[in-house]
Amino acid sequence: MARIASTGPHVVVVGAGFAGLQVARKLKRAQVHVTVVDHYNHHLFQPLLYQVATATISPGDIGSPIRRVLRGNLNTTVLLAEAKAVDTSRKVVECDVGDLSYDTLVLATGATHSYFGHPEWAEFAPGLKTIDDATEIRRRLLVAFEAAEREPDPEQQREWLTFVIIGGGPTGTELAGAVAFLAHVDLVREYRRIDTRQARILLVEALPRVLTAYPEKLSEHARRDLEKLGVEVRTGSMVTGVDAEGVVMGQERIRARTVLWGAGVAASPLARTLGAELDRAGRVKVTPQLTVPGHDDIYVVGDLASVVQNGRPVPGVAPAAMQMGRHTARNIRRQLEGRAPEPFHYVDKGSFAVIGRNHAVGTTLQERLKLSGFIAWFGWLFIHILYLVGFRNRLAVLLDWGFSYFTHKRSVRLITGGSAAELPELKHREPSKAQPPLPPFVEKAPEVRVH
Amino acid sequence: MARIASTGPHVVVVGAGFAGLQVARKLKRAQVHVTVVDHYNHHLFQPLLYQVATATISPGDIGSPIRRVLRGNLNTTVLLAEAKAVDTSRKVVECDVGDLSYDTLVLATGATHSYFGHPEWAEFAPGLKTIDDATEIRRRLLVAFEAAEREPDPEQQREWLTFVIIGGGPTGTELAGAVAFLAHVDLVREYRRIDTRQARILLVEALPRVLTAYPEKLSEHARRDLEKLGVEVRTGSMVTGVDAEGVVMGQERIRARTVLWGAGVAASPLARTLGAELDRAGRVKVTPQLTVPGHDDIYVVGDLASVVQNGRPVPGVAPAAMQMGRHTARNIRRQLEGRAPEPFHYVDKGSFAVIGRNHAVGTTLQERLKLSGFIAWFGWLFIHILYLVGFRNRLAVLLDWGFSYFTHKRSVRLITGGSAAELPELKHREPSKAQPPLPPFVEKAPEVRVH
Repeated sequence: MARIASTGPHVVVVGAGFAGLQVARKLKRAQVHVTVVDHYNHHLFQPLLYQVATATISPGDIGSPIRRVLRGNLNTTVLLAEAKAVDTSRKVVECDVGDLSYDTLVLATGATHSYFGHPEWAEFAPGLKTIDDATEIRRRLLVAFEAAEREPDPEQQREWLTFVIIGGGPTGTELAGAVAFLAHVDLVREYRRIDTRQARILLVEALPRVLTAYPEKLSEHARRDLEKLGVEVRTGSMVTGVDAEGVVMGQERIRARTVLWGAGVAASPLARTLGAELDRAGRVKVTPQLTVPGHDDIYVVGDLASVVQNGRPVPGVAPAAMQMGRHTARNIRRQLEGRAPEPFHYVDKGSFAVIGRNHAVGTTLQERLKLSGFIAWFGWLFIHILYLVGFRNRLAVLLDWGFSYFTHKRSVRLITGGSAAELPELKHREPSKAQPPLPPFVEKAPEVRVH
Repeated sequence: MARIASTGPHVVVVGAGFAGLQVARKLKRAQVHVTVVDHYNHHLFQPLLYQVATATISPGDIGSPIRRVLRGNLNTTVLLAEAKAVDTSRKVVECDVGDLSYDTLVLATGATHSYFGHPEWAEFAPGLKTIDDATEIRRRLLVAFEAAEREPDPEQQREWLTFVIIGGGPTGTELAGAVAFLAHVDLVREYRRIDTRQARILLVEALPRVLTAYPEKLSEHARRDLEKLGVEVRTGSMVTGVDAEGVVMGQERIRARTVLWGAGVAASPLARTLGAELDRAGRVKVTPQLTVPGHDDIYVVGDLASVVQNGRPVPGVAPAAMQMGRHTARNIRRQLEGRAPEPFHYVDKGSFAVIGRNHAVGTTLQERLKLSGFIAWFGWLFIHILYLVGFRNRLAVLLDWGFSYFTHKRSVRLITGGSAAELPELKHREPSKAQPPLPPFVEKAPEVRVH
């Protein structure tokens, strides 16, 4: 127990992502008390989540307990709870554990993926937003190779070795590159009946190019890098169906046992309870000061906010969220001093998308500099290392992580939460020594008989 | 895909723990082909599992993919499957995916915990054998502190902050020490309404002392070390009931929301299908050559084997399992050459139990040397580092792990697989500014109101 060190108005911050955490941190010395409400006990370094999903790093490397990050903020209380709605007339946040009153409210609950009106696809094509999502995707990827190794029928084996990733944005391209690396590099030599290099990895995007948020030249680079890694890139292809057998694109059906979802953005449903105007993705259209129109006491920051600047939307990336968070903390302090909040200006310091192990594409300095290949990857690494340090405040963690990343000596290929129990049963077959059920590409069939 | 590099008899190894993995590794150059069957895709460095459960290290640090460990063994195939029974007349292992025929069979499926005929206790007092067990215990421990922080009723708060660990063997003492360290050192300063140092940690053991496998003097040391860490050690106390409210010991009820199970050993049920004589814990009473009496072609190794030597049972520890595994690989090679298998002799190289962060008790050189305190802990570390290197064959992993362990800069306090959703709802209360519902020990109550 640490003593609460301040009095003053009560600032409630809902969501401890990049934006929310910055608000709380930057209010450390303000004469307020802060309550941070989050459904999870950990802040998540989301840009590296795809590496957990593809068994490169551990969940613990990118999740940091919110309490630990904020333990030096003696004016701050952390509450593990789910915010259900905002009641602006009573000035309370309705949580699963009861109502929480506020003087100033900051909403930073972010966004999740959207299935474009097909929620039934979620079961077959999991998205990637939380650590539980990532370990579930990891489980499905690893189980697919195990099932292929056990499967004597070549047709079904091919289905197990076909991976479809839907959505050519950063999440989709990073996932596709990492799955290709897993299959075509990491797992080679570990199986006896399948050649993991034969695995087919498809990246499907409805628009004419991948990474549409980047300049066209970089999209081309990314496409080439993906193809070098063995990814089939299908742009201009609209997915019209997802089920247990694979995906449907118009007339074409691709039979695949593993489908991953990297498309669509839908704002957290909490926004709807505000009664404010939302954009198409459900984000709150905020004032230039990032407040809800008509509510000076409610800020919306991060991916939940729809901010247009110089005619372009501020992108849903971590640096933008952190800038909004810091700006809002400053505005709250200004309001305490009786001054008016100032408008927010986004500074684009660059963004990167990684393809495979040491390639990336990216832009810096408001797109004046376009990078690709190894240099871009190095830039990506540099930026992420900067953020990791700020985020965890610990050089040791950085060294630890950098070390295992560079040497690639650790591989977190654990099937947990289900294990073999959820592998499909093989069909029963009559024993037969004359016709070994192994795929023909095994030169010398061992006497392992799965009848 | 790697080519199968050998012909010869088919050796089936069931279980890729310390014993099974040694058998497969040491048959690398033998003229046999080997199939390793395991229900999990990873070998588990079980001695450190309690550190995953208490949020010190990541699951990935102690789980290594079986395929990766054995990928250089070109005569070996790994099959992810569950062995259900052995049919000695047909010479097959019946698996969930079908039958697997063998020429030589090695059973190494180990042991699990036993609830002494009370399987209904499992729900309230989870044991610690798998990574999923460890992450579930981690979830319960972390949720308990979160729930206590949210709970305004002092009585219920105390129940959330009471932790009972049943069983004073190595698992129980190591868990109790680590939970005490978590509550009394690691989490201090991170909560605002509770003082985690007030947490009550009880270690309950039915026998008169903890760590009964060790000499009495070391048990005394361990008890003192535990008490210094703030653990209440209750020896000679028999647990007669476990339910949602806590544990019952005769006339006494201890109200606790978190109960962990570290007692009892029950051999894997596969042993029962052999038709061989079992000991009280269900282990197979093997011949001096570690074979099943009457079956020269079936070896039983590791925790599944009941071996008595010089009037004392060989303990169920990793070094014993590894010795049995290596010995069995040698015997299989002898049989290939037409020679008779040789009897097994266990060499006790020492064993350690860790208490808290840098204390341990242990014996080495067949109990000629008894160690305690920091020196014992250092010995423990040394032995584990030796095994980790042998196990993963990667100095990098060791450095990485040693680094984060020594500096204690990483803390893997993730609530996953359920998160706040499984926290109990707080009772609804009328709003009241005059009576803040915070526990009275918070000097300056913030205006956080959970009505």
